[in-house]
Amino acid sequence: MGMFLKDTLRGANRMDQFHAVPVGYVRSDVTDRVRAPRQGRDASVNAMIEILPEYSDAMDGIGQWSQLLVTCWLHLADRDTLAVHPRGDASAPLTGVFGTRSPARPNPVAVYTVDLISVEGNSLNVRGIDAVDGTPVLDIKPHVHRLDD
Amino acid sequence: MGMFLKDTLRGANRMDQFHAVPVGYVRSDVTDRVRAPRQGRDASVNAMIEILPEYSDAMDGIGQWSQLLVTCWLHLADRDTLAVHPRGDASAPLTGVFGTRSPARPNPVAVYTVDLISVEGNSLNVRGIDAVDGTPVLDIKPHVHRLDD
Repeated sequence: MGMFLKDTLRGANRMDQFHAVPVGYVRSDVTDRVRAPRQGRDASVNAMIEILPEYSDAMDGIGQWSQLLVTCWLHLADRDTLAVHPRGDASAPLTGVFGTRSPARPNPVAVYTVDLISVEGNSLNVRGIDAVDGTPVLDIKPHVHRLDD
Repeated sequence: MGMFLKDTLRGANRMDQFHAVPVGYVRSDVTDRVRAPRQGRDASVNAMIEILPEYSDAMDGIGQWSQLLVTCWLHLADRDTLAVHPRGDASAPLTGVFGTRSPARPNPVAVYTVDLISVEGNSLNVRGIDAVDGTPVLDIKPHVHRLDD
């Protein structure tokens, strides 16, 4: 049934891939992927999210929220690895990437729950993102406890 | 500074868009976008996630988790709307889509926190996804309270 669905959609020639665009970029002091903290909230790293001018209207009213869900595209991540040793610990058993928070995965999408500190023009000052400087941002939403916890 | 960064990356000709691929599809009884529940957890809808065979190795060990973060690409969503009336309520003030959970947004990425009920072969039985049948899945991760709440 899964194959049937896939083949049907392939026939329609529009579901094989999707074109995501950067709506902004992470600006942070993290420039080295190896030294980046393992997960945003493990270190209280502050970062800026710079939204591109053409998407600034999408930010109207965002300042009312204290927590946001930020989705990034980890452009440096390995997309071909399907199993990893969690937390880079070679003694941990190989685990499928969908069962880990490794950046390696077929679509290197990261989801961060961040604290919104302030909004300054097209920039959001946030706490809780460990992505390297220049990481593309795909989306921002309010974090809603009822939905996300 | 944002423009400078963007222009630099444009020069490198690799950061303008990203090619996301479906790793699977949502199978559910929700076939009508208008009648779809507004947010997954507002209705206790059960759905299946069918992972494509070529990504099945990425599922190894996923059954140990009780909650997952599932990222979908809302292929029917409007990508050109930057502001909406939240919850479709015309009396609510127009709000930038980054400050709402509307499916309309430049990259129609949905993030669902779901309960994992069972794993059956390449399929995950989950509760908490309101996406219509056939919605492409981009990624699955464990939901970790320390990071995601």
